[in-house]
This record gives sequence, structure tokens and C-alpha cells, in this order.
Amino acid sequence: MRQAVFSILVDNSAGVLSRVAGLFSRRGYNIDSLTVGETNDPKISRMTVAVTGEEEILEQIQKQLAKLIDVREVIELPKESVCRELVLVKVECDAQSRQEIVSITDIYRANIVDVAPTSLIIAITGSKSKVDAFVSLLNGFKITELARTGITGLARGAANLK
Amino acid sequence: MRQAVFSILVDNSAGVLSRVAGLFSRRGYNIDSLTVGETNDPKISRMTVAVTGEEEILEQIQKQLAKLIDVREVIELPKESVCRELVLVKVECDAQSRQEIVSITDIYRANIVDVAPTSLIIAITGSKSKVDAFVSLLNGFKITELARTGITGLARGAANLK
Repeated sequence: MRQAVFSILVDNSAGVLSRVAGLFSRRGYNIDSLTVGETNDPKISRMTVAVTGEEEILEQIQKQLAKLIDVREVIELPKESVCRELVLVKVECDAQSRQEIVSITDIYRANIVDVAPTSLIIAITGSKSKVDAFVSLLNGFKITELARTGITGLARGAANLK
Repeated sequence: MRQAVFSILVDNSAGVLSRVAGLFSRRGYNIDSLTVGETNDPKISRMTVAVTGEEEILEQIQKQLAKLIDVREVIELPKESVCRELVLVKVECDAQSRQEIVSITDIYRANIVDVAPTSLIIAITGSKSKVDAFVSLLNGFKITELARTGITGLARGAANLK
């Protein structure tokens, strides 16, 4: 079992997300994360799907994705690609714990994006392992809400897709 | 017409993304962006969906989302919420343009995450307007690949969902 990250260029149509999601759900593969957003060309979107499975299943998924209507190109991002995700965390705090949370935030070069009397929202961007380490540190305090975008990525070096 | 950002807590099942995507595609609503990732409880995921439409359509969408199987809670994020997205941009460069691109990157507090002989990858996190401004500046150079996560967000102040 390993995790693969597929980068998929699709036509920006109402049905394509549903077709991609349908492919995974029909076969019972659970998606680790999925992000979708426009590329620099508004007619084309890029989906980034992280999925865990056996080697042959992952190969199958890639082939089946490539056959879907409105899918233009599918690559699996190589291991050494730049993969990042963005996480927003809301943590409960009081005067004392706020100071500790600010220190942790500085160490991870994360950003405090909202301060309320009894809570903070922190934004952190990085690899999944960095983000997970940060969140598990904050679990020493009380996390009340957490939103993560899921992984997006590009292969290093010259252009691969689009 | 306006953009609404829905924050949706769902059970982490293989079918729920497909059901949410299907709701939009059946009715021909195009999703501006969608992100999905685990919350702090691995059994529960949070989807953040941005969609543009008339007021009554947006109300309908919210009601229909709330009725779907495996959907636990749907809120529309208030306007003053913290909404962020993460974009990776690959730009072609030579010795001279690299310097200019690095300057722009510094001004926007973005990060260079890969350097190759003829290209750079830059990661930027921020509100959609900040990110869009940065990308349009880089359009003066040659953008060869672009991956964006789409919007994720949390309401300011004390906890709302979960």
C-alpha cells in the first residue's frame, strides 16, 4: 500500500467532478484528499487527488481516470514533487496559553489570521508531514475547528502538464 | 449573483464526495472550487465549496446539501470569515527574469519552493484577491503550470461547526 498523488487536467465543466468522484465511490476507493481549481486558462481546471492503495489498483485508477469524458491528461506526480497543503486551525486559548500557541506558530512559520478573546485561528502551509506535526502539537491545547485543503502539487523542473 | 462559500461536515465515506458533486452536476451548477480534507477527527471530513449563483439558488443548494446522506452539517461562511487558498505556480525564467520574479515573490511574502535552471516554483497563500493579483503579475512572465487548492475557510471567533 502506498499513497499516489494524481494531477489531472480537466475541462471546466459541471459534470467532471461528479464523474471523477463517481469513479472512486463506485469502486469503494476512499480518496485521501481532493482539490480542484482553475489553471491559468479558465476553461481548464486541475484536480489533485491523493489516494492510497496497492500498486495494481493505483495503475487501474490512473487508466480509468484518463478514459473519463472531459479529462485531458492524468499524471502521477513523482515522489520528489512539490506537494503542499494549507490548513486552518481554530484553537481555544486564554491569556497564558495564547503566548505558548504564538511561540509554536512562530517556530513553524505559520500565521495567526484571527484573534478573538478565547480563540485563535492559525494558517499553516507545508508538506503533509510538517502540517501534521504542527496540528499534533496544537492537540495539547483544544482544537475546536480544523479545515484542510488537501494536497496540491507540481512536479519539479520544467513543465509536465499544460 | 454572488459567491457563497459552504462549509460542510461529512462522514468520511467513499460515496459522500460523489453525492455532493452529483448534486451540483445534475442541476448544472458549476462549482468555483471545492476542497475536502479530514478534520481533527479522522472519521469526519470537511468540504468547502465555493459556488456562484442567485440568492434563491444558493438557499436551495444549502438545503439540498443538508439532506444528503453522510452530510452532518452545512453552514454558509459569513462574509467576514477567514478564507484562504494555496497556489503553486511554475514560471519560466532566465538569469535576469529570475531576479525580478524573486522580488515580486518577496513583496507578496510568497515562497520559492523549487529552483531549476529555466524555471521556478512559487507557493503563495492568501485570500483569493491577493493570490489573483500575484498570478496576474506573474503573467508578465511565462507561467507554464499552475495548481490551486481552492478556498478553505473558518468563521471568525468561537467555534461554529464541530
